[in-house]
Amino acid sequence: MEIALLGGTGDIGEGLALRWAADSAHDVLVGSRDPERAAAKATEYATALDDRGRDASVEGLGNVEAARRADVIVTAVPAYHLTDTVESIADELSPDDVLVSPAVGMKRDEDGFHYNRPGVGSVTQLAANAAPDDVPVVGAFHNLAAGRLADLDADLDWDTVVVGDETDAKDTVIELAESIEGLRALDGGPLANAAEIEGLTPLLINVARHNDGLHDLGVRFQ
Amino acid sequence: MEIALLGGTGDIGEGLALRWAADSAHDVLVGSRDPERAAAKATEYATALDDRGRDASVEGLGNVEAARRADVIVTAVPAYHLTDTVESIADELSPDDVLVSPAVGMKRDEDGFHYNRPGVGSVTQLAANAAPDDVPVVGAFHNLAAGRLADLDADLDWDTVVVGDETDAKDTVIELAESIEGLRALDGGPLANAAEIEGLTPLLINVARHNDGLHDLGVRFQ
Repeated sequence: MEIALLGGTGDIGEGLALRWAADSAHDVLVGSRDPERAAAKATEYATALDDRGRDASVEGLGNVEAARRADVIVTAVPAYHLTDTVESIADELSPDDVLVSPAVGMKRDEDGFHYNRPGVGSVTQLAANAAPDDVPVVGAFHNLAAGRLADLDADLDWDTVVVGDETDAKDTVIELAESIEGLRALDGGPLANAAEIEGLTPLLINVARHNDGLHDLGVRFQ
Repeated sequence: MEIALLGGTGDIGEGLALRWAADSAHDVLVGSRDPERAAAKATEYATALDDRGRDASVEGLGNVEAARRADVIVTAVPAYHLTDTVESIADELSPDDVLVSPAVGMKRDEDGFHYNRPGVGSVTQLAANAAPDDVPVVGAFHNLAAGRLADLDADLDWDTVVVGDETDAKDTVIELAESIEGLRALDGGPLANAAEIEGLTPLLINVARHNDGLHDLGVRFQ
């Protein structure tokens, strides 16, 4: 399967690219608005993987070209770039593709980090609203600490909750998530349940800030 | 220490009462608006503990009397009863006491459970607003599945995140939480960080509903 990581040069994109390239047989397409930057990052990831003895398939492309080629398109961009990013690749999306949104909206004040819920209900819903109606949109990977994700020496032992309205698309993403070692994918129900998942990310940051020895936190439901 | 569980005849109150009575040396005061019901429930809990060979101190009282006697007062009532409950015992609270709110506001629709955030910011903040200004209010125990909590044969292996603006009060609650076997207490920062903790409870319910084999879920930050 070909997976495009739009914004794949950013921190969550880097982590997902490295993990899929290291742990699965999927082809990873690193996307960026700047194709040269994407190519440079892809070479960097491939070199890091090669140093670990992994012969991984990682290629860098512009976002549009990456979306055109891929079966699963992950929008690894900040929440405030999400709508623009999805609109910029909308013509490349087909009903057979799956669009995956991991973005979370947060604001920070003197007390800590807080969930900044968009008026439409969730950031994942923003992605769904920007995508063509016939393209399945799935929310996943919202609660992964980018630093640990990108450190291939670090074990994860984390859960990710997957939401979406189309069962097949959700199953595809659950399988992709579980192809990453140490990641368990749980079904969170329809897309309308995304807000509570997104709201968990600021909590993880607040807990890491206030407890010595805890950092780069994820979550396990048990 | 004497711990009052207002609404201690309800499911989360029962779980906390049984766990503290079983695992710690603290005296548990089961509170209810109806003192006879509180006494009956306290006898029920004490019998259950006695059957397990634990000689526990559990007493049933009216909410007001329980709050008067206790050092730590836990409002184990539904969110929509929280303000009334705190107001009804406000005269019994002193600056040396700690008021603890575990309540979460949720609504349910066809998609699942959702966090119903009060206009004041969080349910924990509702408790703080209803309490006298000089009484420390702490949020804790929001994400514990009542069924497993009340089943003393079940291991917990859960975290609870504790928020509050007074360090001493928060430390008291962290110690109390960790006196329950299998429960780790984490500092979530000031009370203003309560909403993201409360919002985790509907997510736990949604995940339990959509994944075979998972039920009565709690969470572990790692």
